This record gives sequence, C-alpha cells and structure tokens, in this order.
Amino acid sequence: MLEDQNLRAYLDYFLGGFVQQKIKRAVISPGSRSTPIALLLHQCPQIETFVHIDERSAAFFALGMSKASEEPVILVCTSGTAAANYYPAICEAKESNTPLVIVTTDRPLELQQIGAPQTMNQQSLYGQQVKYSVSMPLADSTQAVKEYAHFQAIKAVQIAQQRPLGPVHLNMPFREPLLPSVQETKNVPDFHQAFCGKAVLTQEQITQIKNNWQGKKGILIVSGSQNRSTAKQYVALANELSWPLFADPLSNVRNCGMKSDTILSYYDLYMGCLDEQWMPEVIVKVGNPIISKSFNQWLGQLVVPMYVIDCEMEWKEPTLHANYVIQAESETFIKMMLASEVKQSDRQWLKRWNSLEKRVQEICEADHYLCDFTEAACTKLVLDSLSEDAQLFVSNSMAIRYVDRFSGQAKNSYTLLANRGVNGIDGIISTALGMAQIHQGHENVLLIGDLAFCHDMNALLLAKSYDIPLTIIIINNQGGGIFSFLPQSQLNPVDFEALFGTPQDLDFTYVAKLYEAQYQEVRTLDELHKCLLEEKNVSQLRILELKTSRAENSLDYENLCKKIASEI
Amino acid sequence: MLEDQNLRAYLDYFLGGFVQQKIKRAVISPGSRSTPIALLLHQCPQIETFVHIDERSAAFFALGMSKASEEPVILVCTSGTAAANYYPAICEAKESNTPLVIVTTDRPLELQQIGAPQTMNQQSLYGQQVKYSVSMPLADSTQAVKEYAHFQAIKAVQIAQQRPLGPVHLNMPFREPLLPSVQETKNVPDFHQAFCGKAVLTQEQITQIKNNWQGKKGILIVSGSQNRSTAKQYVALANELSWPLFADPLSNVRNCGMKSDTILSYYDLYMGCLDEQWMPEVIVKVGNPIISKSFNQWLGQLVVPMYVIDCEMEWKEPTLHANYVIQAESETFIKMMLASEVKQSDRQWLKRWNSLEKRVQEICEADHYLCDFTEAACTKLVLDSLSEDAQLFVSNSMAIRYVDRFSGQAKNSYTLLANRGVNGIDGIISTALGMAQIHQGHENVLLIGDLAFCHDMNALLLAKSYDIPLTIIIINNQGGGIFSFLPQSQLNPVDFEALFGTPQDLDFTYVAKLYEAQYQEVRTLDELHKCLLEEKNVSQLRILELKTSRAENSLDYENLCKKIASEI
Repeated sequence: MLEDQNLRAYLDYFLGGFVQQKIKRAVISPGSRSTPIALLLHQCPQIETFVHIDERSAAFFALGMSKASEEPVILVCTSGTAAANYYPAICEAKESNTPLVIVTTDRPLELQQIGAPQTMNQQSLYGQQVKYSVSMPLADSTQAVKEYAHFQAIKAVQIAQQRPLGPVHLNMPFREPLLPSVQETKNVPDFHQAFCGKAVLTQEQITQIKNNWQGKKGILIVSGSQNRSTAKQYVALANELSWPLFADPLSNVRNCGMKSDTILSYYDLYMGCLDEQWMPEVIVKVGNPIISKSFNQWLGQLVVPMYVIDCEMEWKEPTLHANYVIQAESETFIKMMLASEVKQSDRQWLKRWNSLEKRVQEICEADHYLCDFTEAACTKLVLDSLSEDAQLFVSNSMAIRYVDRFSGQAKNSYTLLANRGVNGIDGIISTALGMAQIHQGHENVLLIGDLAFCHDMNALLLAKSYDIPLTIIIINNQGGGIFSFLPQSQLNPVDFEALFGTPQDLDFTYVAKLYEAQYQEVRTLDELHKCLLEEKNVSQLRILELKTSRAENSLDYENLCKKIASEI
Repeated sequence: MLEDQNLRAYLDYFLGGFVQQKIKRAVISPGSRSTPIALLLHQCPQIETFVHIDERSAAFFALGMSKASEEPVILVCTSGTAAANYYPAICEAKESNTPLVIVTTDRPLELQQIGAPQTMNQQSLYGQQVKYSVSMPLADSTQAVKEYAHFQAIKAVQIAQQRPLGPVHLNMPFREPLLPSVQETKNVPDFHQAFCGKAVLTQEQITQIKNNWQGKKGILIVSGSQNRSTAKQYVALANELSWPLFADPLSNVRNCGMKSDTILSYYDLYMGCLDEQWMPEVIVKVGNPIISKSFNQWLGQLVVPMYVIDCEMEWKEPTLHANYVIQAESETFIKMMLASEVKQSDRQWLKRWNSLEKRVQEICEADHYLCDFTEAACTKLVLDSLSEDAQLFVSNSMAIRYVDRFSGQAKNSYTLLANRGVNGIDGIISTALGMAQIHQGHENVLLIGDLAFCHDMNALLLAKSYDIPLTIIIINNQGGGIFSFLPQSQLNPVDFEALFGTPQDLDFTYVAKLYEAQYQEVRTLDELHKCLLEEKNVSQLRILELKTSRAENSLDYENLCKKIASEI
C-alpha cells in the first residue's frame, strides 16, 4: 500500500502540473500499463477525457481539438505498438506547429531489453518528430521525484506552446501494482506562472522594413494556419499598402469576415498566363508554402527582394529566394507597422490585379465546371452555404485544391482547417471530429474524398460515442482523383488503376448504418443546396455522398484552363 | 530524358538486388513520390505486388506474409505521414524477429528542412525499431550510385534475414520527373551469393551441456514463434531426455503433428498449486517468455540451473535467472545433442507431470466452462475443428489466453501464428490476411475479440480486393474482456466501463455487407460445429460472430480454477 500511495502522490503532482497549466482535454486509449494515469485523469474535474480504442485515430482527434482550440491536448496510451500508432499525427503536429503533449506509459527499466512482454524501446520513440522528449522516473517516496513530475508536466505544456509550436513526449514507466491509492495527495505544490517573452522587433527595424515596402508595387502572400483574427490583420496591412494579397485557403483571409479588393483567391487559374508587367518590386510572404503550384512556379522565377515573415522561427522557405527574414510575433509586428501612416503604392497596380481576378472569377462562374454537378461546383456550393462562424475541415489531395481554386471571398465568415503540415490523407475524419468537438453549437463540415474517408473510418467510433455533430461531404470519384491531374495519368490504364486509381468500391450506406449516421446520396446541385441550407441543424453525424467521375473531372478542368488562357 | 534514363537504371539496379535475393512479394501504398519504384515493382515479373491504401494495415499485411512464408516482404510508400503509419508493424516485426524491408520514398535533400510540402525528416524515422537504416542517394549518371543501390538492396535483404531477424529501412529520395524511362537497363550486375555462417557449438560444448542435462529431472520450456519442423525437434529432444515439455501455443509444439506424453499444455491451470516435489533439477528454456502468468510466477521463484537457448542472440530472458546462455541455431544444436545416445531421467518424473496434466484436462473437459456456449468452449471447438495443415492466427488479449489454457494437444497438425512481439491488438486482421494470402489452398482461421476487430477493419479492404479466403471468428463480449481478469475490475463500474470495458456496440452485419463478406451469428456450440466442420470450404471472407458476456466469463473461469485447486 506504500507503493500505491507513492504512485498516487507522484501522479497528483504530475497531473497537478497539467491542471496548473490549464489543460482542458485528454484523449485516452485503453490499456493496462496506462491504468494509473488514465484513471486519475478520468477522475480529474478540470480535464475532460475522451476514450478511443484506435490510438492512431485518437491522436488525430487530439490534433483536431488542439488546432481548433489553439490549446495543447494530452494523449495517453499503454506501452508497445499503441504508442507507435500516435506517430502519424505527431508528424503532422510537428510540421503544422500544433501543440500536443504525448504521455506514453512503459514498463520500468529493469524490464527493458530482456524480452519482457509488451515491452519495446520507447526512449526517444518519436525521434526528430517531437520538440522535446523526457524519460520520466518511476514513482517512489523521494520528494524530488514528485517535484520533478510536477515540473516536467509544466515544462512540457509550456514547450509545446512556445515557438515553434509542436508535440512533446513524456515516457512514463509504472511498476505493478497499477492501481493508485484513492487518497488524494495534500499540499501538491503550485507553480504560479511562466513569463515568456515573445519576439518583438525594435522601432528602428520596423522603420527600415516600412521604408523598404511602402510606395512600392508589392505583393503580400499569406499562408500557414492563421486564425481569423490574424487573417484580418494581414488584410489591414494589405489595404494600407494597397497591395494584392494572395490568400491561401489555410490563411483564413478569404473568409475572415473582412472583404477587400486586395484579397485575391483565383490566382491558381491565371498565374501561368502572366507576362512581365505583373512583376512586383517587393514580395512579402507569411507562413508555409501556398497550395497553388502555378503560383509557386511563378514566384520561383522572380528575382525581386523577398521578405519572409517567419513567426515560428523555423526558416521554412522552400523557394530559397528569401532576401530578408523577419522573426517576430505577427500581431505585434503588424500593429507596429500600422502604428504610423503608411505610404500607399500606385493604385493602378492593385486595380490591375483586381480586374484580372474579377475577369477570371466571371469566366469560372459562367463555366459548365462550376454550374453543373461537378466536383468543383459542389465544393463551391458547400463553401457558399456555410453559415456564420461555421468551421470547415478540408481534406488533402483534391478537396483542398478545389477550395483553393474556386472559393472566392466568402459570404459568411467561417474558419477553415486542414492538415497541411505533411498533407497526408490519413486521420482526416478524426481531426475534423476533434475540430467539431471544440466547436459544438456551430456548423461543422468536413469535405473529403473517398480514399481519405476509407483510410480513417475508425474515427466514426468517436462520433458515435460522443455524439459529435459533423456533416461529412464525401466526393466519391472511386479512387485517387489527384493522379488524373499528374504525369502518372499517362501510364497505361492497367498500371494506372492498380497503383494510382485504386478504386475501393464500397457502399457507404453500410458505413452510415454501422456508425449510426444519417446518410444521403446527393445527385444534383439543387439537392445539395437543400441539404446544406434547409437541413443545416443536424444534431448528429451526417454523411452526404456525391458520386462523380475522375475522368470527366480532369477533362472539365483542362477545358476551363484553356478558356481562361485564351480569354485573358 | 537523361534524368529519366538514370532513374530507370538506378531502380533496375536496386530492384535487381531484390530479385537476386529472391524477394517474392511487395506491398505498395499509393502515392506520388513513390511512383518510380511502385511502377517498376508492379511491372517486375518475379515480384508479386499488393496495393493497399492504408499504410498501417499494409505493413501488418506484409508482416503476416513474412511470418507465414518465413521470407522478407518489401513495403513501399510515399513520403510524409504515410511512412509513419508503418511504425506499429515495424515495432512488432522488431520484437517478433520478422524480416521486413521498408522502402520509404522522400523528397531530395535540397527540399529538406525548408518547409517544402509533404516533407518531414525521414532520416532514421524508425529509430531503434529497425536493425538497419540507410539514406539512399539520388539517382544520377554515376555508375557507383547504381552499384550502391544494387549492393544496398542485397545487403538490406540479407540483414533482415540474419539473426536477430527483423525489419530494415531504406529511405529513398526522388527528384521530379517521377516517371522512369520505359527502356529497361541492360547488363544489371549480378551479385551471386552470400555465404553466411551460422552459430554452431563445438563438440566439446555439446558434450558439456549434454552431461549437465542427461539423467536429471529436467523441464524443457518452448516458446517463441517456432515452425512445426523446429517444434518436432524439440519434442524429439524432450522424448529423448524423458522431460516434460511446457509447450507455449506459439511454439507450435502442441499441434506440430507429433503427439507425445512429454508435451504439457494445461499447465497455466495448475502451476499455482504445486509444492516442492515438482521442483526440477535443471531448466531448459527456448524463445520468448511463455504466455502463462502462473507458469512464469512458478518459474521466477525456482533456484535451479537454467539454460536459455537464445537462437536470436538477443539475451532475452525476463526472469533474469539464466545461468547458461546457448547461442546456436536450434536445428544443428538439437541434431548434435541427439547424435549420440542420451541418458534418460527417472521415468517417474515425467509420469507424475503427465498424470497431473491428464487429471486437469479431465476436470476441464467435464466442466460447464468447456461444455456450454462459453468463450473457452468456443475456442476449444475452433481448435479441434481445424483441418490438417490449417493455419490459425490468434489475436492478443483474451483469444491467445484461451488457446493457451484449453487447446490440449491437437488432433490435426496445423500452424499457429500470432503477434507476440509486442502483443498489440492493432493490425491483427491485416496480419492474419497476410498469413492467409500465403497459405491459400488450406484452411485459414482468425480468432479475435471485438475490440481488436474494430481496431483493424480497414484490413478487410485487402480481403475484398484480393479475394483472400479467411474465416474470422469474433468473440464479441462488447469490450476489453481481459480487464475483467485484472485488478482494474475492482474499480467502480462507471470508471471501469469508460476506461477498460469500452463497449463499442457495433452491428457487425453491416461490416460484412460493406466488405462483401459472408456473415453468421453463431449462438450454440452445435451451430459453431456445423459452421466449422460442414461448411469448411469457404472461398471468400467469412465472419462468424459469437456473442458472449464478459462478466459471466470471468466468473466461470474463477469457478473452474477453484475446482482444479480443490481436486488436485
């Protein structure tokens, strides 16, 4: 019983650190070795716990909650392969700067490397994919061990939230017996507060930058996962400078609630057609690479001073053309930039871009591709139907590309999220459910292809267990639609279908029945409109399936591109 | 086009190495970066390729094929989180000594660490969980680079198959364009043969060991994943010594086709009741830890010379009581041991064990727990129904424990496989399908609980795509049955059900419909008997669901244990 009480005290100190850091959510996967911490987390009034049997999906669910709440989420699992299942979501968290605190439980050191059951080397299990990793000591009667646990819990949460944000890992061994005492520990120490400085430039640096920007024909490129409030700041900056703002969908600029002539969103469709007169004098770029390939190609061949605003301080700039790097918190940086008057650039510069954008938008809106029941038109309709303060999760591969090309500026303001750290098609439903869990009371929509849907069906167990209302829109073109747009499509059809098309041919009505979701196949734009506008208030999981054709789709797109090239 | 031809030549050299090493199977997951190698593997006549969209499941499928064929299998995926999804199966392969050759594809070095899309640090991605890891160079016109690719392919396959067997990792970057030339490379070099010595003891060492064993009251404990031919050798050794052989299910001794009075299998049920008269004079132990907890506890308190036959040369002996370690290939070792006459031990020693075993077997067979429709009785019936040369995959948690306790010696000889490296409940269906794929033409059965079934449903896409005939027997007790046998069961029912019971409440008829499998709910032992014996020749995926009760089950088991304790 002494061991038992030590275990309780150790964990009270440890979890006390999480509570002190205002952790609100933990996702637990069942197991034996994790019993002590799972049990006390479950009983902790300040932390809401979710239980999910599939650790891969559990980690993406935590990732989604972290992305939507902008707060770290705890993950807890047992020893062995359970912990390895977290790896995909950890990789995404690392590259998308999402804070996660992963607690893997383990057998004690005296059972390591001797063939003890369910034991593998969990030291540094996640290698370079976590920011911080610590091997926790066993619970014992030493006061320093308990204080160490408290300190590490606080440190881990803090590190996860500091630039560059990301996942941290605590590997925690437990000896049997695994049931902690029911006696709560008294006098758990209370760490008070961390005062952490942020990156702020000097007034001299701001003046230098401002002088280099103002009055010039510049462009502002905003990508990365920005929230709507940061997005608005960038719009204000573009407005002040009279610069076109190339707004990647992830930037949330297009749907932040501020409309502006500076915001461009159709650029993927026209960047390939531009001549020298469109060359800027200065480029300012924020966040991760923009999705549009044609834009990136255009950008790559410019020889113009480029400023990179590198808020995460990771030197991420794949064009390798950065001439200036600005490492500063964006909020303060932009406030300082706008604190005194900014000289505008030639208004003609912005007007030209704006009329090009409008022209392309008109061509698109009149085209079959956006008027009939196509993948592009359906995507556009989904976006246009989103209610105020909705939250939209967009899958990778084709879904995000349709949004990129055709969203335009949104009617209502909403928040768009995606897994654009490593752009995987895994864990998408789980991440979207994490987002929806945080955002209950508002509309939650997931736009996804059939392969990504198949990949992550276990996530639907979460929707069922926790009644998470989410509308999933599956664009089912029977396989990997993106490959029809790539050089692989020139392969012979047998190789192509086997390796890239990979149709799965599943009847999703059974998926809906299995997980007790509403289901509807949508066959026309009118039907989709009805589902999205008139039947918006769903209280449960709803699946809308849109069956489309891969072949038609890439042909339609080609035709639209040709039309744009000839008309502008 | 030069780049293209270089890429082709590089991969012809590389894949030529796999072909030279007689690799027969590869599992590919679709992606763009992996196009060059996926395409040429798919076109390679000597290597059968399987395509599966879920990389986690794909890796376990490869693991199952490797386990069943005792030959390495190739895995190929694209860059990013796809590669991280392999991690759970890699951890299992490492701990269960299963050869896998993992080829992850990657973006070139000049796109690393600068925020390029779908790019993360894949160097040493699997850390300590692989035996060997190499960063491959890019294809170019240098002859040495092509030869290096050929050499590394051969080396990787060889290392995967050398003791200790396990997974190896090649990270292979590709630059665009990703389509190799259609012109096959001429004059790919042909490495001829690797002559690899195996661990053989000297005649003097054999004599010393033999003198220490023969004539003594010894016990032989055989575990680890042995094939039936090795299992037979151990039976021959036990027979020769007149020693009881404690046969873990994984050893395949119980069902190797050789019946013997030396073979014990009911020991888990009586090891807790033994007094001093059962103490051996020498212990010989083979392979990983045995499953039975009561056996391990008994073993742990013995102070008797213990010999550990450590074929994988990994010093795995969790009792830490090894006095002698024998590192030698078992086949040659046992042949040498049996080459000259062996002095038998006192026949009474074996007879006593044997009559105890028979007595416990009789008690079990007469008990309600093995006569009525219980989890134990169903398991026993499944085992007794297996046809000659059947292959059985057993899931972890409860399924393997029923087999351990109640299998007895098999009527027909069959092969039993399981994932007992790290004992996860993940990837079980995928691994079983890998086994079944190798073993077509024979009966293939998977015994699994409902949680493990839910965890790995994506595997059923494989069964559907490749028409793999497998009978899946789900013991559905609505949750984690094993926890009812552990101290956690004393928790309050609300905490217990939320954290450990975790019922998922899915209607598996929809799963069967979704993946086009046969489905039957089995309600009585007679029905089960009929399904397993009369309807044996299934040509497709078949799901038999047995609905049982967790609470009743642990009670029944307790009663049986009490009965055994009082009667022996």
